[in-house]
Amino acid sequence: MKRFEKVTIIGVGLIGGSIGLGIKKKGLAEEVVGVFRRSSTLKRALKCRAIDNGTLSMEEGVKGADLIIIATPVSLIPSMAGEAMRYAKKGALITDVGSTKKWIVSRIEPMGGLFVGSHPMAGSEHAGVEFARPDLLQGSPCIVTKTTKTDSGTLAAIVDFWKALGARTSVLSPEAHDRSVALISHLPHIVAFSLAGAVPAKELPYAAEGFKDTTRVAMSDPELWADIFLSNRREISKSIDVFERYLNSLKKAIMNNKHKQVVKLLEKAKAVRDSIEY
Amino acid sequence: MKRFEKVTIIGVGLIGGSIGLGIKKKGLAEEVVGVFRRSSTLKRALKCRAIDNGTLSMEEGVKGADLIIIATPVSLIPSMAGEAMRYAKKGALITDVGSTKKWIVSRIEPMGGLFVGSHPMAGSEHAGVEFARPDLLQGSPCIVTKTTKTDSGTLAAIVDFWKALGARTSVLSPEAHDRSVALISHLPHIVAFSLAGAVPAKELPYAAEGFKDTTRVAMSDPELWADIFLSNRREISKSIDVFERYLNSLKKAIMNNKHKQVVKLLEKAKAVRDSIEY
Repeated sequence: MKRFEKVTIIGVGLIGGSIGLGIKKKGLAEEVVGVFRRSSTLKRALKCRAIDNGTLSMEEGVKGADLIIIATPVSLIPSMAGEAMRYAKKGALITDVGSTKKWIVSRIEPMGGLFVGSHPMAGSEHAGVEFARPDLLQGSPCIVTKTTKTDSGTLAAIVDFWKALGARTSVLSPEAHDRSVALISHLPHIVAFSLAGAVPAKELPYAAEGFKDTTRVAMSDPELWADIFLSNRREISKSIDVFERYLNSLKKAIMNNKHKQVVKLLEKAKAVRDSIEY
Repeated sequence: MKRFEKVTIIGVGLIGGSIGLGIKKKGLAEEVVGVFRRSSTLKRALKCRAIDNGTLSMEEGVKGADLIIIATPVSLIPSMAGEAMRYAKKGALITDVGSTKKWIVSRIEPMGGLFVGSHPMAGSEHAGVEFARPDLLQGSPCIVTKTTKTDSGTLAAIVDFWKALGARTSVLSPEAHDRSVALISHLPHIVAFSLAGAVPAKELPYAAEGFKDTTRVAMSDPELWADIFLSNRREISKSIDVFERYLNSLKKAIMNNKHKQVVKLLEKAKAVRDSIEY
């Protein structure tokens, strides 16, 4: 991969910070600069060495950058892209890390600029640059989006960049991304939040590992996830329907005391889950 | 705690094996004997040192035992208790580890004998004595059941025994146990199995940590869990309804683009989950 002179990360939390640490560890750029809204988070990112330099000024931050990565919450990504493009040099590559893509890509593409959308599917229930680690993306899926307007050189460079950080990249349309991710990522979050929310507090002393695992992602940031859910609500609604059909088949089989049918439904689920246990 | 001369474990898998290892590590008995249906599992349990001696004969296994622990799948527990009582000495304490209690306790109590039901809430998605560890119960909840027929000395001795293995014990009626556990343990398993079963195989390459955590317990044994679900189906049905109400509130708020309401539902769920992260 071509080494960048300057990479700018807008929003340096868990994901942005991990990207910064990864770039530095792998030597993918001369300089990593962070753009912040608050000086407190700037200081925290510097302390974690996730960036070489930080600034509160978008103009200063993106000036001369070869690659700009927008890692803010989803709802801010289009406006951040617009602001960054005002100050970016000609030929600067721009990408983001947002968990929904149609909403974001359809807003940024008309602005012009060498933009492709990305979604590195890494992270955890923890938020903040303190949890960042250079290998967060190692072995994780990363979807890069392609539309009829996508510049093929930009696409190739962004794919190479994520690969250099260790991600397993796939190229999908924003629509295909949103359909897949509604099922494999947004739905598990919806289900985990609903499960944690539904269980009465008086039962919590009996919580064992099963409850903890199944609800772990319900510790994620509510504002961040509200953003994601609302920006992909059509596909999420469909994915909830898919889930409820399975849940109701299982419930019906249990209620009707159909042992074989219950076993069959559980076996199908186990086979799916076993297949990704590598 | 009074040290036992002989403890007999009927069914030595993950839980039975961990109890055996724990008894030996803490020196709670002179001898731990396992009763098996198959000589292959007997050999595996001996190899793991989960028991001192093993036998395929119930008569030989329970003869002279001070404490008998039934750790087979739920549907076999009442018949195993009946068989064990035929050969047990007078004064032998009997308990089980089944995940549902009303179904089990209501069948065993009329047989007489010093029985109280137990449910150590430990385990994992792994089955088999190879995964047993002496500290499996350390810090885990363990519910011991009490009915109008329960002998108070037996209850106290069984509670002491689980405490000696490191469990956090609670005493509940079988009915209260089944209500609580339907929500805090059976429901997460139902939800995890439904989620893993519902997601189409073609989406699996995009599975990240969120999906893996939320569906981890769907790797559990289908026969074991079908048994558990069917023996507590009334309470499980009610717990699914509780879950679906929360899920549908969240779905509705998302579909109607109600940002504040979505955040509120996610915040409530996060507060519950955060509260058990010790």
